[in-house]
Amino acid sequence: MTASQMSLGLFIRPAGFSVAAWRHPGSQPDANVNFGHFVDLARTAERGCFDMLFSADGLSAETVGGRSSMHRMSHVVWIEPATLLAALAAVTTHIGLVCTASTTYEEPYSIARRFASLDLVSGGRAGWNLVTTANPAAARNYSLDAHPPKADRYRRAREFVDVVVGLWDSWDDDAFVRDQASGVFFDPAKMHALGHAGEHFRVEGPLNVARSPQGRPVVVQAGASEAGRQLAAETAEVVFCATPTIEEARAFYADVKRRMPAAGREPDELKIMPGIFVTVGRTEEEAHQKRALLQDLIHPAVGLGLLSKHVGLDLTELDPDGPFPELPQGHDKIHLYRAQVVSDLAKREGLNLGRLAILFADGRGHFEVCGTPAQVVDAMEAWFTTGAADGFNILPPVLPASLDDFVDLVVPELQRRGLFRERYEEATLRGHLGLSVPKRGVRPIPRPGPAGQAEQPG
Amino acid sequence: MTASQMSLGLFIRPAGFSVAAWRHPGSQPDANVNFGHFVDLARTAERGCFDMLFSADGLSAETVGGRSSMHRMSHVVWIEPATLLAALAAVTTHIGLVCTASTTYEEPYSIARRFASLDLVSGGRAGWNLVTTANPAAARNYSLDAHPPKADRYRRAREFVDVVVGLWDSWDDDAFVRDQASGVFFDPAKMHALGHAGEHFRVEGPLNVARSPQGRPVVVQAGASEAGRQLAAETAEVVFCATPTIEEARAFYADVKRRMPAAGREPDELKIMPGIFVTVGRTEEEAHQKRALLQDLIHPAVGLGLLSKHVGLDLTELDPDGPFPELPQGHDKIHLYRAQVVSDLAKREGLNLGRLAILFADGRGHFEVCGTPAQVVDAMEAWFTTGAADGFNILPPVLPASLDDFVDLVVPELQRRGLFRERYEEATLRGHLGLSVPKRGVRPIPRPGPAGQAEQPG
Repeated sequence: MTASQMSLGLFIRPAGFSVAAWRHPGSQPDANVNFGHFVDLARTAERGCFDMLFSADGLSAETVGGRSSMHRMSHVVWIEPATLLAALAAVTTHIGLVCTASTTYEEPYSIARRFASLDLVSGGRAGWNLVTTANPAAARNYSLDAHPPKADRYRRAREFVDVVVGLWDSWDDDAFVRDQASGVFFDPAKMHALGHAGEHFRVEGPLNVARSPQGRPVVVQAGASEAGRQLAAETAEVVFCATPTIEEARAFYADVKRRMPAAGREPDELKIMPGIFVTVGRTEEEAHQKRALLQDLIHPAVGLGLLSKHVGLDLTELDPDGPFPELPQGHDKIHLYRAQVVSDLAKREGLNLGRLAILFADGRGHFEVCGTPAQVVDAMEAWFTTGAADGFNILPPVLPASLDDFVDLVVPELQRRGLFRERYEEATLRGHLGLSVPKRGVRPIPRPGPAGQAEQPG
Repeated sequence: MTASQMSLGLFIRPAGFSVAAWRHPGSQPDANVNFGHFVDLARTAERGCFDMLFSADGLSAETVGGRSSMHRMSHVVWIEPATLLAALAAVTTHIGLVCTASTTYEEPYSIARRFASLDLVSGGRAGWNLVTTANPAAARNYSLDAHPPKADRYRRAREFVDVVVGLWDSWDDDAFVRDQASGVFFDPAKMHALGHAGEHFRVEGPLNVARSPQGRPVVVQAGASEAGRQLAAETAEVVFCATPTIEEARAFYADVKRRMPAAGREPDELKIMPGIFVTVGRTEEEAHQKRALLQDLIHPAVGLGLLSKHVGLDLTELDPDGPFPELPQGHDKIHLYRAQVVSDLAKREGLNLGRLAILFADGRGHFEVCGTPAQVVDAMEAWFTTGAADGFNILPPVLPASLDDFVDLVVPELQRRGLFRERYEEATLRGHLGLSVPKRGVRPIPRPGPAGQAEQPG
């Protein structure tokens, strides 16, 4: 990658990003149990020279019933992403493989092993999307009395990533000597027990996986709150974000990169990749017809239900032909931020509540583009060249149809303008992203901590 | 499979089962980080029509240094097995994929997801080897003050398997309707939340993975103690065991199968597969030369260290030319049992301590056979036809060399005698093993428990 070229991730879900994707004729009917479907997607993405596949993850299928659960289940009941990506590693050759794993409900030794192992089986193409689990229903599947509060989750996440990165550094690259004649398998001086003892974790190490081909798997994050931005600035190498307009994207981009020097990092050690919900057609009319068809498949009650959850207000009893309501006093901060974005959009575009709900259900707060290949690339180029994005996380409305469209129509136009690679030039995900291989023993952030924990370069 | 044919598993480790395998010219030098090596092994095993690959697992690489840690590290620092098997699923077509996951340090919701997902990506070839973690060093990687005592681990394991099996039954086979026209994705009447609340776990469910192609992944166990045998009789579908002689194997076989009716199960719902450490040559002389070469690679201190650990006595300061010592009074039960087996072997074969240690380091208490293909198959047939085994877990001393030998020399002789399949006739691991697909909602054991927990067929 050169600085003049963008990075592209493909967000995979069984039927596509749209909540109604599974109802669309361009989706794979049994996508949620069909491994071959994902093999086809991965190969198409690799044909399109994508940097990576990305999958979110959740720890509950709990449903409150009704229409919206029908759509929700099409997204959440499928193959566990880490298992899926390991399988895809064996039938792909270049594309990066990134998925979510929870710092709230998993253990760092287990997570460090899994992603280091994915890096080994893929030849250096693994990435970990470090999240704090937001869905409180997860607690009911993990024997907890209550879902931990956000501040606790972020404190645990911060320590969790330190432990995982420390475990990934358990072995020097040349620790395994394997001298058959002398019987020396490894050099004990090149093995590094972690000896971590912190607030949430005590982890002795070393990891029982050798240092991986990328040195460490790529660390990805997606949190947008104050705590999420700070965690990203300190520890992330890729950030996925949901910024519906170029102004919001620029503000987010500047804010996160601004925080990095204080954490001892250069701004280009982190790639910011907003989600983009793309509907592309050979003509503008074709694109808009595609979008309208998909929107027609969204049940109005599903749209209102999703929007209600997103903004933290019950909108389901309100008149769909009326306006988005005034925001209540004392609304909690994260929902207030989201509600304000939605409210601004409604005023700017003159949308009633029902229409707003359908639009939201579609792209769910992400940057949306609908048009010809040239129009789509115009928008992407504007974001990429003016400090709003280092690349994009492509959210295909329907899989496989929208991915085929993107690879056949948008990627060639990006390549024609020199904005995207024409072939893979590197073998690892770090290589595609232009990220260097971390030096063993050097933590991403020399964070002050209990004496003896932070191993310095030596 | 017919009752007249045996099952075969292949025990995989990076370099092979022998502690000195990595020093052998027939091993793959960088086996512990080389995914291609495991692809080759899986394909060879599939060429040999094996029922399954099997990998053990552990949660620590902790080492106490010295010679024996050199060998230990060659076994324990490699690719996490569940990730490895998921990757192998994509490049194999028939062979079963079984690995260990701990009930002591993992969570049942996570384990249920992983193995159900492995079953999906493999098209019905997954198995879970349910263990209680014996290595106390795991506690130091999982933030525990102390490794839980054995009785607690088994109580937790018993509840853990109930929860996992219950989660695997979250969805009827036909729960996902996916009616695009009407917008009905699933039938809520065919979704079953578990609602488990027990001593160790509270798990609401449902699982966010559809019921898998095998109904449930195959449940495997390897515990040999009283608690392990009882757990196996109640819950396991395959048991791996270490029984060095046909008499011990018959006694173990009869004991486990005898316990099954009381647990409401038929004896043929469980396949007992002793480990077998095979060295085969085209001639008897060639086989013995192969074995001697491998034994020469075992450092005497490694052998004494391993044997000490196995029998719970420090033998490292004793004269290697002297006898195995008398057993101390009050020796703990599990070590006493093992020490007695070793002591009997020493007396029976007239072996001094050093020789005993080398032999033990070799097969480590498993059934050992060394000879021509006909001699190896004679032994296997005797076990199989006289109530000592339903099949075998093949422990190849060196990988890939010993697997190539087994597939090229032993498998054809087994097939010639009609003891083993000549081609795969089924598509799933249950199919290979002759195990039926479990009915959803019917637990393996209608165990008495708190009211409302045990879901009965209805």
